Amino acid sequence: MAGAAGDKATVTQRADRVDVLVKSLPELDWCANPAEIKRKSLDYYWFSPVLRRELEAKSADAVVRPRNIDELRRIVAGCVGENLPVTLRGGGTGNYGQAIPLDGGVVIEMTACDRLLWLKHGVARAQAGIKLGALGELLAPQGWELRCMPSTYRMATLGGLFCGGFGGIGSITYGPLSAPGTVLGIQVMTVEAEPRVIELRSPEAMQHAHTYGTNGIILELEIALAPVHEWDEHFITFDDADAAFNVAQAVAQAPGLIKRETALFAPSVAKYFKKLAPHREAAEHAAIVVLAASNRETLEALVNQAGGRIAFRQSSEEARTRQHSLLEYCWNHTTLHALRSDKSLTYLQTTYEYGREREQLAAIARQTGDEVLPHLEFIRDEQGRVVCSGLPLVRYTTEKRLRELITLHRECGVGVKDPHVYTLEDGTRHGAMSPASLAAKRRFDPGGLLNPGKVRSWVTSKES
Amino acid sequence: MAGAAGDKATVTQRADRVDVLVKSLPELDWCANPAEIKRKSLDYYWFSPVLRRELEAKSADAVVRPRNIDELRRIVAGCVGENLPVTLRGGGTGNYGQAIPLDGGVVIEMTACDRLLWLKHGVARAQAGIKLGALGELLAPQGWELRCMPSTYRMATLGGLFCGGFGGIGSITYGPLSAPGTVLGIQVMTVEAEPRVIELRSPEAMQHAHTYGTNGIILELEIALAPVHEWDEHFITFDDADAAFNVAQAVAQAPGLIKRETALFAPSVAKYFKKLAPHREAAEHAAIVVLAASNRETLEALVNQAGGRIAFRQSSEEARTRQHSLLEYCWNHTTLHALRSDKSLTYLQTTYEYGREREQLAAIARQTGDEVLPHLEFIRDEQGRVVCSGLPLVRYTTEKRLRELITLHRECGVGVKDPHVYTLEDGTRHGAMSPASLAAKRRFDPGGLLNPGKVRSWVTSKES
Repeated sequence: MAGAAGDKATVTQRADRVDVLVKSLPELDWCANPAEIKRKSLDYYWFSPVLRRELEAKSADAVVRPRNIDELRRIVAGCVGENLPVTLRGGGTGNYGQAIPLDGGVVIEMTACDRLLWLKHGVARAQAGIKLGALGELLAPQGWELRCMPSTYRMATLGGLFCGGFGGIGSITYGPLSAPGTVLGIQVMTVEAEPRVIELRSPEAMQHAHTYGTNGIILELEIALAPVHEWDEHFITFDDADAAFNVAQAVAQAPGLIKRETALFAPSVAKYFKKLAPHREAAEHAAIVVLAASNRETLEALVNQAGGRIAFRQSSEEARTRQHSLLEYCWNHTTLHALRSDKSLTYLQTTYEYGREREQLAAIARQTGDEVLPHLEFIRDEQGRVVCSGLPLVRYTTEKRLRELITLHRECGVGVKDPHVYTLEDGTRHGAMSPASLAAKRRFDPGGLLNPGKVRSWVTSKES
Repeated sequence: MAGAAGDKATVTQRADRVDVLVKSLPELDWCANPAEIKRKSLDYYWFSPVLRRELEAKSADAVVRPRNIDELRRIVAGCVGENLPVTLRGGGTGNYGQAIPLDGGVVIEMTACDRLLWLKHGVARAQAGIKLGALGELLAPQGWELRCMPSTYRMATLGGLFCGGFGGIGSITYGPLSAPGTVLGIQVMTVEAEPRVIELRSPEAMQHAHTYGTNGIILELEIALAPVHEWDEHFITFDDADAAFNVAQAVAQAPGLIKRETALFAPSVAKYFKKLAPHREAAEHAAIVVLAASNRETLEALVNQAGGRIAFRQSSEEARTRQHSLLEYCWNHTTLHALRSDKSLTYLQTTYEYGREREQLAAIARQTGDEVLPHLEFIRDEQGRVVCSGLPLVRYTTEKRLRELITLHRECGVGVKDPHVYTLEDGTRHGAMSPASLAAKRRFDPGGLLNPGKVRSWVTSKES
């Protein structure tokens, strides 16, 4: 089996095999700098103190950046020949150690395979390594943009979004990335001695979503787009917590408001937005709302009526010129801003029950005091309902207490996707891979070389 | 008070006063043909056998078509001077007698005031008399379209949509026309000896929505638009009623499908779509789904999986060339197609309870058999939920039985907007005008000259 053990002899043998591989493919763009190899073995796993402890020592033996698919094919064939673990990497912006090799081997960084292949009828096809921000720049002049993207869009890749992302900005209109109709198809390379390239259409293609690159190497993605709008970014403040929630929810629900983002932050969270501090009083709650320019007046009326104020507004064009978008305060950028100021913080990923959001938030607040700091993100779910998800900050003390807080949320009926675990099963999959996902892995990675250890149930599954 | 009585002497006096008015404004475009005066005194009220009986004898004494706002001002001043009832008319496509003068007087047809005034930042401002289809033709080259419109868009005017419409096509994405963010402002002329022109912004402007032109004369509307898409029109058929409902609801709910229309028809309703007959087996249920071209493949997968078939598809471009759009089978065009074949039919307007749609539909079916023929339209409500509304056909026998059927629906928890009444109070307003609506009427029509009788509570209100 593919190097599950980490003992010294195995590691030495593996390093030797990597040497053989690197020497056999001297024309490739191997990373020569050990510090960079270490850096490119890690992602934003350090958002979790638990993952920091578990993963900080991990490193690839080598990092390579294929310049084209033919180079990629040679690397994959070589890794299979040498029986080496292979870990795929996009922009390295994941938070769950999804790009971290658990057992060394080769990290393949996909960022040089970054072409937009075509764009027609509101659909784009691009290589997996294209950065989302760069893709957006290519789409906008044609009147299109991504339906959803993470707050890390400047660095994150399309393949990374598919393999490890949820959606994010834009999900208030288009739902999560997994909602049928957004990802239309993918092209996948098998991890075999003679790698094959296979086209999959949705829904089959979606078996490969959010699997951290463990069931085949995504080469291309075909995605349906959203019409680009002239967006206004609003930073809105409120004295009153209820008014803030009411406005954010009303905006999120309103079918007559064309929107890209609706987020809500407690004062204890908004205080970490340093550059926005001049616009907010210390005790104020804050919302970030990104709306079509045509809805500006309606938002103003709604906010004024609720006793809030639009503390800052800029167009998406101004945001671009200033290199300062309010989108980069939302989703996990909220956590990033907070962690820059206070290393003792971490976070959870939560989903409140439709219709019981307020009650559940109050129950959590009662039981946790200032240990859990509310940050809400409104989205449409796969049934088209406007639901409330969260990335609350958590004051970290011990792992035991962190687990208790997760349990406490779940006891209140709040769903938690645990960002403090690194296997596929434990994150969003309720402890088990679906048979279809495992079948996809068997088909595209029969040797189990893709980041061994990431799919906990793989060994059992192969032997069964 | 403004002519509530209809006795002979009053009518003669009124006709004399109209003569005086017409003679005092000879330069205006008065309708000379009595048959045309009769025709332009009526609308699609005949969809209701009850309204047919109650309204078919109604007629204006004169019909005039102002060519500009100055002409309109002269007409209004003249009517006030002669104390004549004034009824506003757009394309005459309403179904509730909303353009029918209950007490004679002057009908003002607004269709010559039809300019698009400006279009910027996704917002258009146009005169009330512009036809929706014509407006759409002006918007499309700039990348925009109406967020919602009735199936009568070829004939219906923008002012008519605001004064008597609900939304319709497009409401599956943008909700009803009344959803905050769509109508931004209106310009209204008062009915006074010296008519004033007043700009109202929303939400205040919305006091004037759906009041059949009884609280001021709408001159201009400012509306937020939707980005235009390359639409595909699909006619989908199913052997199985449950599969048909499931697919229509799933499409309606799916946030990853960009859509403009989702309607569902029982075989007993779809049979009236003569031109679509070659595409449908007699026993098949039918859905009409209008989706962005980028979602074509996703819809196919969904339909195939459910055992349905896409019986006919055309692009919106093909629909335009063929002068045959599937949109013109939806909303009240369904009723129109049916009435062309069977004069004994009429219809209801229903709203099913969110989450209980199927149960309520089954209860109605059990209790009414083939007396009520299901036609469903999916929309987003003002809370952003995808809900199921209906325009079921009804086999009409007596008014008493029609009332029983309405009661039966309501007893099952189904909301009914009664299309068999002609006053504002009895249609969608649960029997009473809001104080704010009455205040708006007092402000813009102090003499109560706008179609007297249409607002049942007016006299009382003025005297109180």
